[in-house]
Amino acid sequence: MPMKLIDGKAIAAQIKEEIAKEVQQIKAKGGKTPHLAAVLVGHDGGSETYVANKVKACEAVGFKSTLIRLEEEVTEEELLHRVDQLNNDPDIDGFIVQLPLPKHISEAKITEAIDYRKDVDGFHPVNVGRMSLGMPCFLSATPSGILELLKRYKIETQGKHCVILGRSNIVGKPAAMLMMQKSYPGDSTVTVCHSRTPDIKEITLQADIIIAALGVPEFLTGDMVKEGAVVIDVGTTRVPSNKTRSGFKLTGDIKFDEVAPKCAYITPVPGGVGPMTIVSLLKNTLLAGKKEIYPD
Amino acid sequence: MPMKLIDGKAIAAQIKEEIAKEVQQIKAKGGKTPHLAAVLVGHDGGSETYVANKVKACEAVGFKSTLIRLEEEVTEEELLHRVDQLNNDPDIDGFIVQLPLPKHISEAKITEAIDYRKDVDGFHPVNVGRMSLGMPCFLSATPSGILELLKRYKIETQGKHCVILGRSNIVGKPAAMLMMQKSYPGDSTVTVCHSRTPDIKEITLQADIIIAALGVPEFLTGDMVKEGAVVIDVGTTRVPSNKTRSGFKLTGDIKFDEVAPKCAYITPVPGGVGPMTIVSLLKNTLLAGKKEIYPD
Repeated sequence: MPMKLIDGKAIAAQIKEEIAKEVQQIKAKGGKTPHLAAVLVGHDGGSETYVANKVKACEAVGFKSTLIRLEEEVTEEELLHRVDQLNNDPDIDGFIVQLPLPKHISEAKITEAIDYRKDVDGFHPVNVGRMSLGMPCFLSATPSGILELLKRYKIETQGKHCVILGRSNIVGKPAAMLMMQKSYPGDSTVTVCHSRTPDIKEITLQADIIIAALGVPEFLTGDMVKEGAVVIDVGTTRVPSNKTRSGFKLTGDIKFDEVAPKCAYITPVPGGVGPMTIVSLLKNTLLAGKKEIYPD
Repeated sequence: MPMKLIDGKAIAAQIKEEIAKEVQQIKAKGGKTPHLAAVLVGHDGGSETYVANKVKACEAVGFKSTLIRLEEEVTEEELLHRVDQLNNDPDIDGFIVQLPLPKHISEAKITEAIDYRKDVDGFHPVNVGRMSLGMPCFLSATPSGILELLKRYKIETQGKHCVILGRSNIVGKPAAMLMMQKSYPGDSTVTVCHSRTPDIKEITLQADIIIAALGVPEFLTGDMVKEGAVVIDVGTTRVPSNKTRSGFKLTGDIKFDEVAPKCAYITPVPGGVGPMTIVSLLKNTLLAGKKEIYPD
């Protein structure tokens, strides 16, 4: 079987079109235009770009979007007050507070202050818990994007051994929970490896599906992957490069040249999981606008 | 290394004593006596016994306890109303609604209606989510009991391969989450196997620690376990027996006679994980009484 590249960019474009179509229909019927608000604190370059892309994506599918900019010096209390306003604004269907936040503000406190019915990032404990319990919820962007890719490429997951590298709250743990769930995609035997796993290679060699989310550039080499595996690369580390104008290169956790020839399917970096994360946010915002998950 | 039996009964007794001592101190200082309420719907024999044991355990450590009995025919609305009363009763620190509930009542709805700050069963999505995120929470009884046993026997878990059999919401999934957490006990490489895993033996043979929670009597046989493993048996299936007065015998997921000689540590059934579950409930109630997890 020849290696097949998973084209996250194309899938993302396709889903955006599907969402745009649905938004048009909603509007045509006189329904409420989904409205996402994004709160950006400070002027971190990465965060600026992420938020700008989110706002742009909202506009492209016909959502209403509101960008709220707060200075780096904003107090936790002030930010909590803004969160409260957004919680109580009936026109806002969902909102995000872009992380990371300045050190004087507790990210956990802010995340928990967001009304879980508007938590389209899926970071609130209620959404994390409901995901774990297999209940309807807002799924967080990266694991949701990974599952969508598996689904769109009709990749078999039932009874497969899925090995996840990394145990972060936003990728490794939720991906593990979803992949073991009795549903498709899912129903896999799941192993989670991390920095304390003594011999990761021993385990990845058994994997039918590998989800690499360690944030260690080119960690997974060719000798660690069995023939015919499906490999999903979540890593996006900025590695200095003299070949690009920006001076860096987005590098995944997979040594692509070595691993790709052995794979049934593989995601590139960039253009694999990355473009899917914004799509997941759009999907959640649409669900929030339709009040599909939390009806009241 | 000779096999060591993990004595859950003895550890449970020891922890109950520790709790009783702390309750005495709280009372001596004029503090509030922790108060657990249990709601029992209908007359299922198993549930009657479980709830009676919980109430008895509360009294033994000096807690106040309240048993609320409702008839099988109680409506969902009435039960939700009772839950609401308990949520708002300042004397009740924590309460449980014994499961299973009659079929005309949604267990998910009732579980979510319980104020998570009083959810000493740890079943509410907020507590499940916070557990997954590594935040302070009420841990559900069985996984919490398992971790306590590992801790009291000072069993090394960091970097060990922990294989969990079963993916239920009350054992398999939370045990997986806890065992992969960056803490002790935990920090293990975790694999979750279940009914869809094609060759469980291949995986259990790699395990340093096995947590069996399939509910399949004597599923794990001697040939499935490597020398020196730690084996925790969560199974408690009532198997008909002509050797006991009750006509049945509590049977674990482990074929004890075969597996025990290969183990470094093993839990018996009964007397292993079982006695720990009530202790976990008491620990949560004590935490609730002291408002340690949710201060307001």
